[in-house]
Amino acid sequence: MEDRHNNTSRRDLLRFASLASLAAGPLDAASRQPSGPTAASMSGVPFEGRDQVRLGVIGVGGRGNALITNFTAMPEVRLTAMCDVVHDKLLRTQERLQRAGKLPVAPALYSDGDHAFEQLVKRDDLDLVVVATPWIWHTPMAVAAMKAGKHVAVEVPAARTIDDCWQLVNTSEATRRHCIQLENCCYGYNELLALNMCRGGLFGELTHGACAYNHDLRGELFSNAGEGLWRRFEGLNRNGNLYPTHGLGPVAHYMDINRGDRLEYLVSMSSLASGMAAYRKEHLPADDPRQKEVYRCGDLNVSLIRTNKGRVIQLEHNTFEPQPYDRINLIAGSKGIFRDYPPRIYVDGTTPEEFGSIDPYKDKYEHSYWKQTGELARKLGGHGGMDFVMAYRLAKCLREGQAPDIDVYDTATWSAPGPLSEASVAKGSAPVLFPDFTRGKWRQERPVLEG
Amino acid sequence: MEDRHNNTSRRDLLRFASLASLAAGPLDAASRQPSGPTAASMSGVPFEGRDQVRLGVIGVGGRGNALITNFTAMPEVRLTAMCDVVHDKLLRTQERLQRAGKLPVAPALYSDGDHAFEQLVKRDDLDLVVVATPWIWHTPMAVAAMKAGKHVAVEVPAARTIDDCWQLVNTSEATRRHCIQLENCCYGYNELLALNMCRGGLFGELTHGACAYNHDLRGELFSNAGEGLWRRFEGLNRNGNLYPTHGLGPVAHYMDINRGDRLEYLVSMSSLASGMAAYRKEHLPADDPRQKEVYRCGDLNVSLIRTNKGRVIQLEHNTFEPQPYDRINLIAGSKGIFRDYPPRIYVDGTTPEEFGSIDPYKDKYEHSYWKQTGELARKLGGHGGMDFVMAYRLAKCLREGQAPDIDVYDTATWSAPGPLSEASVAKGSAPVLFPDFTRGKWRQERPVLEG
Repeated sequence: MEDRHNNTSRRDLLRFASLASLAAGPLDAASRQPSGPTAASMSGVPFEGRDQVRLGVIGVGGRGNALITNFTAMPEVRLTAMCDVVHDKLLRTQERLQRAGKLPVAPALYSDGDHAFEQLVKRDDLDLVVVATPWIWHTPMAVAAMKAGKHVAVEVPAARTIDDCWQLVNTSEATRRHCIQLENCCYGYNELLALNMCRGGLFGELTHGACAYNHDLRGELFSNAGEGLWRRFEGLNRNGNLYPTHGLGPVAHYMDINRGDRLEYLVSMSSLASGMAAYRKEHLPADDPRQKEVYRCGDLNVSLIRTNKGRVIQLEHNTFEPQPYDRINLIAGSKGIFRDYPPRIYVDGTTPEEFGSIDPYKDKYEHSYWKQTGELARKLGGHGGMDFVMAYRLAKCLREGQAPDIDVYDTATWSAPGPLSEASVAKGSAPVLFPDFTRGKWRQERPVLEG
Repeated sequence: MEDRHNNTSRRDLLRFASLASLAAGPLDAASRQPSGPTAASMSGVPFEGRDQVRLGVIGVGGRGNALITNFTAMPEVRLTAMCDVVHDKLLRTQERLQRAGKLPVAPALYSDGDHAFEQLVKRDDLDLVVVATPWIWHTPMAVAAMKAGKHVAVEVPAARTIDDCWQLVNTSEATRRHCIQLENCCYGYNELLALNMCRGGLFGELTHGACAYNHDLRGELFSNAGEGLWRRFEGLNRNGNLYPTHGLGPVAHYMDINRGDRLEYLVSMSSLASGMAAYRKEHLPADDPRQKEVYRCGDLNVSLIRTNKGRVIQLEHNTFEPQPYDRINLIAGSKGIFRDYPPRIYVDGTTPEEFGSIDPYKDKYEHSYWKQTGELARKLGGHGGMDFVMAYRLAKCLREGQAPDIDVYDTATWSAPGPLSEASVAKGSAPVLFPDFTRGKWRQERPVLEG
């Protein structure tokens, strides 16, 4: 869905603004309870089980293609249908896969306008729909897929408003279809290693974590292709954490969020906006219309989240300033601390006041998913291999009839800091409550990423 | 004032509790305006100028002795009087200095009870009183010194409540005496280097900073000597940032706080308390009375502070968990970022997506204070030399009749996140306003650490 136009235009912008405002609920919806009827929980509900996973993909831009590569690396996954508003991109993807021998049967192609995906999800030869489109389309596409009886795996963030979050939860429960957030970072080597360390008690009682999406995207955001066509617009009218899940997902796993603990409230603060204006001044022509865009979103947004058990999570977002990539990925407790970028560890009494290497811990704590997939994951290489581990796990759960690792409650909870941070920032950093998307089920302790 | 007893006792604890509660104002005093009459500002007011600086020191524990060593390393500083509730400590300090040839004339000694300092400050041969006692004594001793007509330099934090802060400001203005917080970290090599980088525009427009006092003090806090005799008590009834100034001082300098910008509001969150209980379980006898102490203070406290110009400061405190020492000391803007521990830098367009060494920047950005003092500072070694640079600057300003680098407004502003974080934590992380201790003078741009 990404590079239909060669240049961003006022029309793109207006179209985005109108879609975005339709999608946005009122800010005070933060803790509103769902209005619709509720059905039984989808927590722990297993997939049906099947030999083969038939895949439909909506959006074959950069990210859609990467996901297809990882899913179709498994012979038991078959790509059945694809959708994109740019027909040429469907053809290019099809050709690439045919050359690679990954398309035994030509998939059905859908490209007739913004709502062509509604045709795709109606097919009866799909076990999973994958959504990899601009963010404003994530929730409507996921809802449409579930309503058409399909499990759906959605790129991050799955939701941009709290109403979106509830729509996903309500629809998943009503249709008995899973809504899985494709949070690849939960499957990173270091993240899964740290998860095992937490489970093994290496850090004692967990007290706090920190995480981020600190990634200099200025070049991409001003690009005339790919995400440059739409992602910059998210910063025009939203001031908060635009992209919370990459950081939060793994820390939520460390802390058993929705599996014994839960996120209770958040405060958020944004800095002034400066980086994008400084960048375009140097890199774009003086008469480029983008010189006049006003970004409401602060360069740094930082939120503090408190859990029911009294743990604290610091969550940062900064895509507008020059800086080395950093998801922070910190977890700490009464006995020690792990910090990433680069990965390092300190355990009480074992090291002389300095961080040490994680290498001595790998034998004991390397996660089984990486033992199962490591070689192929590293060969495919998507984000260091985590993309394949994620695809592998999702396909495995679908085939073997397990419950998915990440369910609709995680999807909603990890997306929620987007709109909640906006609400808090708009109210001068006032605390806002997380809705309990699980409706009380978070108290139930359940394993995380085991099996 | 530190090791009068060999063991902490219930009596110590009760004494502390009663003093602490007398000192504490109501939590909603956070933004209260001063009640007393106000005099002219002390901002930019020069010292009188003198050839020699005659020093009186209250508290000759570990910190007091270190300060004396640094001050008396300068021949133009003479120690005239000392006070401590433990007379033996005065004698030991005197003997050490005599052996080192740093005491041409024997100083007057005061040790007759908790209020002996009131005699010291009345002397007429003192140009500066230094206070290095337990925190609850900082404000009353500083106020007494100023009321007796002496400039005073107080260890951190100078104040534990907002009423304390206002008392310092009001007293300084009324007496025309300076009240200087001994914030040594402002004089660290890396801090002053980063300050020059900010001034030189290396990071573009500044948008955010981060800082901390993350220091595993568990062993010291449970010690039967030194700070173990009183510092642990601070965590019994206070839940917030107990020790904000080491991190905040340098970042406040980078951002021209009180010299063109100001701290406007703060939100704060504390984690559960776990580290101290885990530590004592392993290290103290089962029947030690400290096993029953209940620490209200969370292991991690983190505050977000917003400035008038829209900058964000993240401020952490964690002295209760195993971790490498880290003051963070981060400053960032539209063009680059500096992060300490270890020091590293990233400047737009100069490096390939990684932090680089600060070494290539030292020629251009090394601060003049370190050029002036570096050799002696490093030889004395207090906290890497910063202690001497601080003492050198204070003595120089006193002698040459300059205004001090750090005035009573900085002292109050940097101490304020202690009580403000307590207030915010107590109210579920609600925003609390910083008082404007400068009464509007913060708008006036003034140089920081120049000269």
